[in-house]
Amino acid sequence: MAGEQKELVRLREGIDHIDDELLRLISERAQLAHRIGEIKHGNIYRPEREAQVLRGIAERNTGPLPAAAVQHLFREIMSACLALEQPLVIAYLGPAGTYSESAAKKHFGTAPSFTPCVAIGDVFRTVEAGNADYGVVPVENSTEGAVGRSLDLLLSSSLKICGEVSLPIHHNLMSRAASAAAVKNVYSHAQSLGQCHEWLSRNMPLVPTVAVASNAEAARLAAEDMEGAAIAGEAAASLYELPILAANIEDDPNNTTRFVVIAHHDAGPSGKDRTSLICSAQNRPGAVYELLGTFARHGVSMSRFESRPARGLGGSPWEYVFYVDLEGHRLDASLAVALTELKACAGFVKELGSYPRAAF
Amino acid sequence: MAGEQKELVRLREGIDHIDDELLRLISERAQLAHRIGEIKHGNIYRPEREAQVLRGIAERNTGPLPAAAVQHLFREIMSACLALEQPLVIAYLGPAGTYSESAAKKHFGTAPSFTPCVAIGDVFRTVEAGNADYGVVPVENSTEGAVGRSLDLLLSSSLKICGEVSLPIHHNLMSRAASAAAVKNVYSHAQSLGQCHEWLSRNMPLVPTVAVASNAEAARLAAEDMEGAAIAGEAAASLYELPILAANIEDDPNNTTRFVVIAHHDAGPSGKDRTSLICSAQNRPGAVYELLGTFARHGVSMSRFESRPARGLGGSPWEYVFYVDLEGHRLDASLAVALTELKACAGFVKELGSYPRAAF
Repeated sequence: MAGEQKELVRLREGIDHIDDELLRLISERAQLAHRIGEIKHGNIYRPEREAQVLRGIAERNTGPLPAAAVQHLFREIMSACLALEQPLVIAYLGPAGTYSESAAKKHFGTAPSFTPCVAIGDVFRTVEAGNADYGVVPVENSTEGAVGRSLDLLLSSSLKICGEVSLPIHHNLMSRAASAAAVKNVYSHAQSLGQCHEWLSRNMPLVPTVAVASNAEAARLAAEDMEGAAIAGEAAASLYELPILAANIEDDPNNTTRFVVIAHHDAGPSGKDRTSLICSAQNRPGAVYELLGTFARHGVSMSRFESRPARGLGGSPWEYVFYVDLEGHRLDASLAVALTELKACAGFVKELGSYPRAAF
Repeated sequence: MAGEQKELVRLREGIDHIDDELLRLISERAQLAHRIGEIKHGNIYRPEREAQVLRGIAERNTGPLPAAAVQHLFREIMSACLALEQPLVIAYLGPAGTYSESAAKKHFGTAPSFTPCVAIGDVFRTVEAGNADYGVVPVENSTEGAVGRSLDLLLSSSLKICGEVSLPIHHNLMSRAASAAAVKNVYSHAQSLGQCHEWLSRNMPLVPTVAVASNAEAARLAAEDMEGAAIAGEAAASLYELPILAANIEDDPNNTTRFVVIAHHDAGPSGKDRTSLICSAQNRPGAVYELLGTFARHGVSMSRFESRPARGLGGSPWEYVFYVDLEGHRLDASLAVALTELKACAGFVKELGSYPRAAF
């Protein structure tokens, strides 16, 4: 016992010593960041550099803390050092407490100011007008596909993509009804209904689903309707005091939503990057095949290829545009050549930007 | 230019080197915490120790980061190390996005699981039943006084206070009305109405105020009533998409809400502690004076003394009980003697616990 007490004292002294060192190093790090800020006139946020640091941390981490926990700590350390030099304003699709806010904080840490916007279009406008430095908008869900509004705005806006965030999403069935059997209507956003389609067909095949504007709105409706249920996240259940009848009902347990960070510029090369673009092919046989050939010839991997009606291009001769994600940076030699060839054969090409792949 | 480029490379190498050291030290810290966990069989959360660490960090911080930023980083480092050994569950007064959640995360960092409860009584019950390790409830606002329900529950519950959190609170007037002049009703929680009393009398003297269950409920009502306004925090404005007509309208710019952390045990001495208790005096002249004398005689400072009807003590002979906060720990010599004397002269004494004063 006395031996254990002695060891406890020794261990706590060890921690105190480590904390002194940590404080010294964090302060020194902030000083170096400050000097960089002086040289670069305050403009020190570099998404590619942050992604490299976070990746490196995960690679060199030998435990006992899990990589995600250490990345979170370095995310906050970088966020605090940056806030000292360049107080950032981040616009996101509100309200507060949504997945978009979580995505924005996962990418930027908690030190910036966060401005919730009521619609995806407002996030774009806020950044375009210079009222925020960066915007965070959802673009893709691993189950349900693209978030149409964001894609249309990427086509029409002059903003670039300078980062991406990947966020696991869980859905719950919540209701004041005694059980799922007593539910007569299921409210949710169309995306979420799609993500829980299998579960709903298996467990509530006869219950009609009602698509509404947001999962928060669905929860509000369910709170007022004793025979209604909502599919939404835990925060909405808590906000509207709705009992959760079934948790994690998403069909894909790895269900994630992908967000992009928009700004007036894209990012420099980080060594593990992605490039997004929008292009069109004329409506003739072989046109799409020809587009894809430019990437294949130069060994450029394509991680996404998605077609969408060309709403954003008034009076354009193309019926469809294609949203393409490529592996690599636009400054990489092979990708640069492929892009040049693409521009020669495609009807229309808009580069959305190159940016580091999500680091955690 | 070349010189600056060279310096930038050197500075970034410096940061890389610091990050390596930080990673090594954080991992080493987690290992020491793990060894402490082995000796103490997993039970390593000590509020007094955390308060000492956070205080020490602020004292030794020489910048350039502000003390609060460094304390936030150490809060997260301790939170991550603790989560590895002892995954904590924290109950708080929900819903998510409220000040109570902010207070819980300010005190415990973001690593634990957080359980929102629909009422203050549920927070107590959740901790009493062992479904959460700790609970966070509001007890006092610097403008409006005590939060009655929490005080009544502290009187009747067997739980102890093991910590306190102090949180700055800002209020805003929000409405769909074109201006404050067009507002016919102001909704808010009675506490918030009290905290903005001066501003309301000066700016909207003829507009009736309506006290409702919560500020979130007030915002919901204002969202449905074109002539209604709510007083609430920014999160509620964002959630219900209500324009803010006037920001920070609280009468006291230092408006803070004090929360306590409740658990089955209080905290050990940290060197800068507070002790809370409830006591009663019989209804005769000089009885209260006699109670206060026990503290004065032994040089114990009193930071709060508040009377309240003795609702929680059915059939008790006392009409009032007193909520008392004292500076110091119950194990401090002078406070221990004062408590012994108090017990001899008071009708009833209930010790709520000793705990470190809020570290930041």
